[in-house]
Amino acid sequence: MKFCSQCGNPVTRMIPAGDNRMRHVCAHCATVHYENPRIVAGCLPVWRDQVLLCRRAIEPRRGYWTLPAGFMENGETIEQAAARETLEEACARVRDLSLYTLFDLPHISQVYMMFRAELVDLDFAVGEESLEVRLFEEAQIPWSELAFPTIGRTLECFFADRRQNLFPVRNEPLEALRAHYTPR
Amino acid sequence: MKFCSQCGNPVTRMIPAGDNRMRHVCAHCATVHYENPRIVAGCLPVWRDQVLLCRRAIEPRRGYWTLPAGFMENGETIEQAAARETLEEACARVRDLSLYTLFDLPHISQVYMMFRAELVDLDFAVGEESLEVRLFEEAQIPWSELAFPTIGRTLECFFADRRQNLFPVRNEPLEALRAHYTPR
Ligand SMILES: [Zn+2]
Ligand SMILES: [Zn+2]
Repeated sequence: MKFCSQCGNPVTRMIPAGDNRMRHVCAHCATVHYENPRIVAGCLPVWRDQVLLCRRAIEPRRGYWTLPAGFMENGETIEQAAARETLEEACARVRDLSLYTLFDLPHISQVYMMFRAELVDLDFAVGEESLEVRLFEEAQIPWSELAFPTIGRTLECFFADRRQNLFPVRNEPLEALRAHYTPR
Repeated sequence: MKFCSQCGNPVTRMIPAGDNRMRHVCAHCATVHYENPRIVAGCLPVWRDQVLLCRRAIEPRRGYWTLPAGFMENGETIEQAAARETLEEACARVRDLSLYTLFDLPHISQVYMMFRAELVDLDFAVGEESLEVRLFEEAQIPWSELAFPTIGRTLECFFADRRQNLFPVRNEPLEALRAHYTPR
């Protein structure tokens, strides 16, 4: 941020009165410009014993497999964001969404929130941001070709929890994702 | 938003190519300015059979009781944000934080995330944004003087769940908050 979005004058970095953090502040109109973390919402779409993955057509991690997910927009709920991303990336309709995993990524100021969901039908297709969309059984999951650690950990939790048929909401620390970082 | 924060030229509202929503776009430098929901993180601090509430010194809802909560900042985890707000508003230290309630407020593009937590000691005090900070037993809760429906619903869930000593994470729809809207 270099200019004030309210008045167009240059902003400076300073700690405003009564605050304790550096902010972008406009000396001309006194606006303080806050920046906050963004929510990435997504789905783990399930069809019988299979789950739906998408192969990314865009960077970062083009060509790697992911669960449909993306930035939550103003005016929607987290659940609506997760269903919308599933429709956009996999042309897939889901129902019975239920919050499942939450991961903090403070180094990039993101919070991941993934929902378990049931695929309504098999009329899914390749969305604009995908190269390929298909169902995988547990034994077929391309573990070494997953796009992000949050995706690997969500899948790992799911297959473990499925054995007990109990799916508690998991808000896990960054360390839980370490096993899913792959060399790039 | 009236001006581009990258180059200072006026922005226009339009749907960018490949997108499906109105955005603030800069015709001069081609930057698309996305706006996303913000996370409000907070704590339900517990001491034996009591919970800690703060009376707000600031608008909105000045003079009404709340749980310590506020906007999550870049570079922190949700849990860190919840603990920081508890320290700032009630000068209180908490431990054993555990995610408890999540509420979508799409009409104001906010997501509330409240953690159950244990007060470390009784050295709490009135923070800068509070008029008063004190412990309440269930029978003492000022239900008609709570600041926000998210606070009332979180407290209601807590006292109900405490009877079973089971505290599942609750991601409830807006309707769950209706009983806690008070006339203004
Ligand atoms: Zn300005
Ligand atoms: Zn510009």
